[in-house]
Amino acid sequence: MIAEFQAYCRTLTLLSDEEIERITAFAVPRTLPRGEHLLQQGQVCRHKTFIIKGLLRNYGTAADGTEYILQFSSAHQWILDPESYHLQSASKFKIAAIERTDVLQWPKAEFDTLLNEMPALNTYSQQLVSRINYTGRQRLFTTLSGTPEEKYDDFVINNPDLLSRVPLHMIAAYLGMSLKTLTRIRHAQLHR
Amino acid sequence: MIAEFQAYCRTLTLLSDEEIERITAFAVPRTLPRGEHLLQQGQVCRHKTFIIKGLLRNYGTAADGTEYILQFSSAHQWILDPESYHLQSASKFKIAAIERTDVLQWPKAEFDTLLNEMPALNTYSQQLVSRINYTGRQRLFTTLSGTPEEKYDDFVINNPDLLSRVPLHMIAAYLGMSLKTLTRIRHAQLHR
Repeated sequence: MIAEFQAYCRTLTLLSDEEIERITAFAVPRTLPRGEHLLQQGQVCRHKTFIIKGLLRNYGTAADGTEYILQFSSAHQWILDPESYHLQSASKFKIAAIERTDVLQWPKAEFDTLLNEMPALNTYSQQLVSRINYTGRQRLFTTLSGTPEEKYDDFVINNPDLLSRVPLHMIAAYLGMSLKTLTRIRHAQLHR
Repeated sequence: MIAEFQAYCRTLTLLSDEEIERITAFAVPRTLPRGEHLLQQGQVCRHKTFIIKGLLRNYGTAADGTEYILQFSSAHQWILDPESYHLQSASKFKIAAIERTDVLQWPKAEFDTLLNEMPALNTYSQQLVSRINYTGRQRLFTTLSGTPEEKYDDFVINNPDLLSRVPLHMIAAYLGMSLKTLTRIRHAQLHR
């Protein structure tokens, strides 16, 4: 796991080999079986987590018990509950493994130390947060404006790798529609 | 305008008086009449903008011409198109004044210089981006999961000051529902 993370850092950041060594020295590997929670609602998100392999969903439950998925995260993505992590407050949302998932984790105090020490890590971290911001705005706009058909098409175009890995009811929970509606759309597309 | 921004900085940031002076030395005041665009779709967002007084909406237009509003921003909030600003790319969304609005603006190059010079400005800026991230996630969840009634109630609770300032069709565009649906909900509430 460590070697894969180091290769990622060498390719996608301006961190030096010494800095990458120091960052990985703090990393704690963990494997989540399918279905296990990385974060439960009400828990405090105490780690920054980098996914080596696998697939997680970040989701919440509405008052009527229905689940809605904010985000799918797979290999070479970071995942955390930003509000709970930054404020060290109870999380409103949950994170769980859809597949068996290998991650590296950094406790917040250690990661904050690394951020203070390394301007290149700080820059990289800010770029990631900005990118999350853009994609979040685009997702909000699609959610507000799209017809169910447009939302599904958009999902297929932007997440071709997830189609075969995510159960249909979770795709429906991500798109904010019922499984029945999603099944109808897919059926209509097959007969186009 | 400058004095009001300086008072805001003294209250809500850890910037020194000298730093606040230097930041405001780069600020360009601008007044937008009601209806005027701060940013058009396709333009590059070249400024960071702080609202002294007034009200703006950040919105996009769907393929069928319908408008959807991502965000309302009023006094003492920052507004920009984050993707267009950071990448200096064509904006997918628009920003326009709902009321006559006074703003202060900083060209990107100047603001980047200030960020590099001042760790306290950098920290403040990162806190703002984090907060935008949380509120965006909460808004996405409400948009995905809420019934039209819940979405309207949520808007009323979180934006009591906007109810009398924003025309109904814009509240509908923010909530992702038709004006007819919104009118029906409001009518039902009056008769509760």
